[in-house]
Amino acid sequence: MTSQKNDRFLRALLRQPVDATPVWIMRQAGRYLPEYRATRAKAGNFLTLCKTPELACEVTMQPLDRFDLDAAILFSDILTIPDAMGLGLQFVEGDGPSFSNPVRTAADIKKLAVPDPGAELRYVTDAVSLIRKELDGRVPLIGFSGSPWTLATYMVEGRSSKDFSKIKALMYEQPKLLEQLLSTVSASVASYLNAQIEAGAQALMIFDTWGGVLTPELYRRYSLAFMHSVLDQLKREHDGKKIPVILFSKGANHSLTDIAATGTDGIGLDWTINIADASAIVGTDVAVQGNLDPSVLYSSPEVVREQVKKVLDAYPHETGHVFNLGHGIHPGIDPENVKALVDAVHEFSQR
Amino acid sequence: MTSQKNDRFLRALLRQPVDATPVWIMRQAGRYLPEYRATRAKAGNFLTLCKTPELACEVTMQPLDRFDLDAAILFSDILTIPDAMGLGLQFVEGDGPSFSNPVRTAADIKKLAVPDPGAELRYVTDAVSLIRKELDGRVPLIGFSGSPWTLATYMVEGRSSKDFSKIKALMYEQPKLLEQLLSTVSASVASYLNAQIEAGAQALMIFDTWGGVLTPELYRRYSLAFMHSVLDQLKREHDGKKIPVILFSKGANHSLTDIAATGTDGIGLDWTINIADASAIVGTDVAVQGNLDPSVLYSSPEVVREQVKKVLDAYPHETGHVFNLGHGIHPGIDPENVKALVDAVHEFSQR
Repeated sequence: MTSQKNDRFLRALLRQPVDATPVWIMRQAGRYLPEYRATRAKAGNFLTLCKTPELACEVTMQPLDRFDLDAAILFSDILTIPDAMGLGLQFVEGDGPSFSNPVRTAADIKKLAVPDPGAELRYVTDAVSLIRKELDGRVPLIGFSGSPWTLATYMVEGRSSKDFSKIKALMYEQPKLLEQLLSTVSASVASYLNAQIEAGAQALMIFDTWGGVLTPELYRRYSLAFMHSVLDQLKREHDGKKIPVILFSKGANHSLTDIAATGTDGIGLDWTINIADASAIVGTDVAVQGNLDPSVLYSSPEVVREQVKKVLDAYPHETGHVFNLGHGIHPGIDPENVKALVDAVHEFSQR
Repeated sequence: MTSQKNDRFLRALLRQPVDATPVWIMRQAGRYLPEYRATRAKAGNFLTLCKTPELACEVTMQPLDRFDLDAAILFSDILTIPDAMGLGLQFVEGDGPSFSNPVRTAADIKKLAVPDPGAELRYVTDAVSLIRKELDGRVPLIGFSGSPWTLATYMVEGRSSKDFSKIKALMYEQPKLLEQLLSTVSASVASYLNAQIEAGAQALMIFDTWGGVLTPELYRRYSLAFMHSVLDQLKREHDGKKIPVILFSKGANHSLTDIAATGTDGIGLDWTINIADASAIVGTDVAVQGNLDPSVLYSSPEVVREQVKKVLDAYPHETGHVFNLGHGIHPGIDPENVKALVDAVHEFSQR
């Protein structure tokens, strides 16, 4: 592989000295970009976009051509794993994802098998290889997966949920069965992420979108414990290089100490905690990623710059901070404000 | 007025000795009850139900006839104030509330006036008087309002929002204008709640449904500060009796110390904090209300009892706890599980 031209992102995650704070944006390849909407239209639907490595590569590269970003992230969806397990993923316009075969009974759970990332998920590893080639060392590539708990919520509910009635009934009434489901999903996530590493992913992120709907105690038992299990199954080095991992549980600021104790390299932060407070809680053995309120991007370039500076100024260390939003970028954002954000991060953080 | 037969709820809020922990349930008069659905059908639509004192009284009483609840809460909606300000509230089935005249410009904000609770909101105070008469001292009656911030989000967005793009753009770009809006709304909330006290409300709750979408710093500035302003404008005594107030900001566990410092009598807790931890943070000068995960009610009576006991056991003091869910009850809940909850609270907390 070619040498890495910009390694700020990897260095910050490993708490090595950096010349400036690295920045990338969750969902940086997404609907707010007209060129993304064009490729998506060409693909016909979202799932085809995910499943066609050339198109996934194309949209992954788009934001890098517009903005001075310090990392690329694989374009994909968190629900590829349950889809590969045979649940039948569908995206209906305006209605979000759903599964035609949700997991409901003990029999459903028992018959789930860990998918082969070299077969059912080959389109993902192919996309990773293609993107690495296309990047040619420009910035590092982040691979990712949903967390076991978050994937399980979709698998059991069958779709996005407001109250998580089905999985919570399972959790409160048949905890052993839920643990069995989460174990299978954890093994699948680990195997999937290891395959992404083999294909060229240089860092990994685990998105726990729904960990925050649990009480702190149940978050630690059903969400964090299974992310920890994934971490323990991951190859944390490849070709002599460390593969840093970021865990991101939205709404789980109550458990930052426990998240840090898993041995993750980085912790994603949503915007409902001051980054100075979060840093004080997690200490200096772990990096943090975040945490600008994504809605700041609805304002103007001037306000974006001010708010970026506030987050940068609040972070107390010389390294260990990856700048990002506290959540994925909203579809209605003006790309000019994203440019203001990315440039402000570099300008205000020059060492 | 007749004497109060069951005053556990008021005593717990004032940290006076109680014979058992009081319990009520947010949205206890609601869609999970078949008798509520029947009255709602009779009313024709939700807004007529709110605006007809006899019907509002009827549904307020329904859960008290089924369950051994320790408080009644006025049946109404948080959006009555903006409706009275002329924003034109509508409820379209399956689509939530919306305003035909949302507040968007400086001119819109300047022309807003504090509604007269004796005129535009007379249906609310009439409902309060009627319910007090109907209750005849059985349990205390809670009046309520939305918080200034939460009302402002609906007024500016014009409807429920996912990302609060409009009010956040206003907040980041024209903070003075937002403060002006919040001041007018705060004066309206205070006047509205004082009128509820005059009409017979024996305790008050302020629902800050959307405080948690802000960063901690901005929550304190734009949500908590204006609830504090409302508190300062309230008559905290009526007819020689204290009128305890509960502030409930969903998702604002980062600021419990600051919430306690407003001088509120009680703090509502969502289920994302252990009640023992919350109690340690807020100290003994303030009561707490909560905080069972509402989804526990999707399980069975046995599991509900277990989980109720866990919350009761975690609360460390002899008084100062009002049992409740951490959020409003979901529409799909089996009333049998609610009965199990209410009875378990009393059974397990006998002093």
